[in-house]
Amino acid sequence: MKINGKPYRSIWREDDGRVMIIDQRWLPHELRIVELKDRKDFADSIFEMWVRGAPLIGATAAYGVAVQMAADPSDASLKETYEVLHATRPTAINLKWALDEMTRVLEPLAPEERAEAAYKRAAEICDEDVETNRMIGVHGLELIREISKKKNGGRVNILTHCNAGWPATVDWGTATSPIYHAVEEGIDVHVYVDETRPRNQGALLTAWELNSAGVSHQLIVDNAGGHLMQHGEVDIVIVGTDRTTARGDVANKIGTYLKALAANANGVPFYVALPSPTIDWTVWDGVKEIPIEERTDEEVTHVQGKGPDGKIVSVQISPDGTGGRNPAFDVTPAELVTGLITERGVVAANAEAMAKAFPEHAKK
Amino acid sequence: MKINGKPYRSIWREDDGRVMIIDQRWLPHELRIVELKDRKDFADSIFEMWVRGAPLIGATAAYGVAVQMAADPSDASLKETYEVLHATRPTAINLKWALDEMTRVLEPLAPEERAEAAYKRAAEICDEDVETNRMIGVHGLELIREISKKKNGGRVNILTHCNAGWPATVDWGTATSPIYHAVEEGIDVHVYVDETRPRNQGALLTAWELNSAGVSHQLIVDNAGGHLMQHGEVDIVIVGTDRTTARGDVANKIGTYLKALAANANGVPFYVALPSPTIDWTVWDGVKEIPIEERTDEEVTHVQGKGPDGKIVSVQISPDGTGGRNPAFDVTPAELVTGLITERGVVAANAEAMAKAFPEHAKK
Repeated sequence: MKINGKPYRSIWREDDGRVMIIDQRWLPHELRIVELKDRKDFADSIFEMWVRGAPLIGATAAYGVAVQMAADPSDASLKETYEVLHATRPTAINLKWALDEMTRVLEPLAPEERAEAAYKRAAEICDEDVETNRMIGVHGLELIREISKKKNGGRVNILTHCNAGWPATVDWGTATSPIYHAVEEGIDVHVYVDETRPRNQGALLTAWELNSAGVSHQLIVDNAGGHLMQHGEVDIVIVGTDRTTARGDVANKIGTYLKALAANANGVPFYVALPSPTIDWTVWDGVKEIPIEERTDEEVTHVQGKGPDGKIVSVQISPDGTGGRNPAFDVTPAELVTGLITERGVVAANAEAMAKAFPEHAKK
Repeated sequence: MKINGKPYRSIWREDDGRVMIIDQRWLPHELRIVELKDRKDFADSIFEMWVRGAPLIGATAAYGVAVQMAADPSDASLKETYEVLHATRPTAINLKWALDEMTRVLEPLAPEERAEAAYKRAAEICDEDVETNRMIGVHGLELIREISKKKNGGRVNILTHCNAGWPATVDWGTATSPIYHAVEEGIDVHVYVDETRPRNQGALLTAWELNSAGVSHQLIVDNAGGHLMQHGEVDIVIVGTDRTTARGDVANKIGTYLKALAANANGVPFYVALPSPTIDWTVWDGVKEIPIEERTDEEVTHVQGKGPDGKIVSVQISPDGTGGRNPAFDVTPAELVTGLITERGVVAANAEAMAKAFPEHAKK
């Protein structure tokens, strides 16, 4: 997507072959573009969250394998690279998928053929991600277009939580893809961006990308969405998901569930945008079966931002002696979800509809 | 209540006659106690929010009148003091009530009798507030005691939003009063304290007062309550209110409504603690009739806290160019409210029950 008029992906290869990323740790205050030169750079960039978001992590790992194959295409190097990169974020499903995929392609080849094939497959993985997200946008656009028509072209107010934007993918994003498509079509949209405490992904990333792309938006605290929905100021909620179950329960950043409750209580449609690999067909009851990561309470007691001198600093908001509790995700039950916006179209959040849309995955 | 073992009120008179307050702008990082010496000090302390919370503002204004009467007990001085103090926060109902009450008592008296009478009535106003809040605690304690019994003495987990604690009143607080009473009775309680963005009253005040009083608590982000309730980790929600309507709709700090929705969805009792003057008998439909203050978006885009050097600093969390939307309160419809904890007992949140409990106020 565009940053102040110039199109970017979150990872790309320059004409001279260098692999570049945006070091997202400095957003929204600085746009730092860095080259990842060797396997250590790639491992660090994933582990230290210079890049984040399931699809982007997978794409980064794929290019990590390619760069290493250019340096040492031996079997031992390929195997070791798998292990080194996989260890950076061992629970990330897309990371393992990308490494498995690269191994599948490269293992049968002679070492001297591997670098070229690896770069080629990494580029394809990126392009496939872009195409998946583009299709999510095409299908989600129809929902926004309908609302715009009903309002006779009046402003469509969209609420989103956390960041399911293009910096979490290679391009387009998931929840943001319908928004960018609507803007391209000239639909009048306005986005309410949940701050998304404790890590403020809404403020740091979603507001940044919408601001950079010139999309009308306002930052709100996580407390405000219910009031806005109660007063008819939100036409549609679109969020992303970290994992969605076979019956349509949606695990996403903490606080998503509260917005789904408010949407349900006020007749506001609540959609979840997701590439189909995010569906975990082995899990049924999200509330009971999905373990929720509890993170350090320092994320709750402290907030990072730009200080008066322009430097990034962390401030403590709580009294000394007060601890915190920090569940990082929650699960929105399927009955609160109006629909899933996938690359194959909008699918109802229930087992039957999902199995019909993805017959190759559904349990027999 | 106690701060590290020593009992305090939020406003008090020393034996030598000086009127003292806690300058709450520095909490939770510093406990600054200051004397209010003259009318200007009192006006500044209300206007600049050294003191906040409806009951405390009223009590402060009452002592402001007394201090001024000691300096100049003339009719002109009394009238001017009313105007000066009323202008500090003109929409605060308790402020006007306290000034009217002081005028009612002092106006008929000879000037030389006014100072003593004013100090006496100000002290009574403080004591009356303390007694009201104590009774809220006595009644709310019964609810907590019942839960404790059902759990065979197991920990009672209480969630609260914003600060309806003793620094907002003269003592005990409203939502916190049942908690302090439960702790005094030896009931095992634990409080989940909502951070309460954008002004972080939960982190700055509620966590501070619970920490100072040695009450078990953890700070959580405003997003976390739904998840905790979904998993049975909250036994009761108790919040305060800025205004409650004749049918029991509850206006309170933004985000309260989202917690009420989650409580309702998960069978968690949701109680509102309030002194009866907080009921506005002239208003019926809170969502339609109560205007919601929209505040500066700088509260959304910035967060204040203690920096690495120990100094209080404000940091910007959003990108340059991103604005915010900042509704400060929301309204929880009566049907989501399990009950109102008042000084006369726990009252159902509906017009009939409220009129029965407060027949002198209810419309005929």
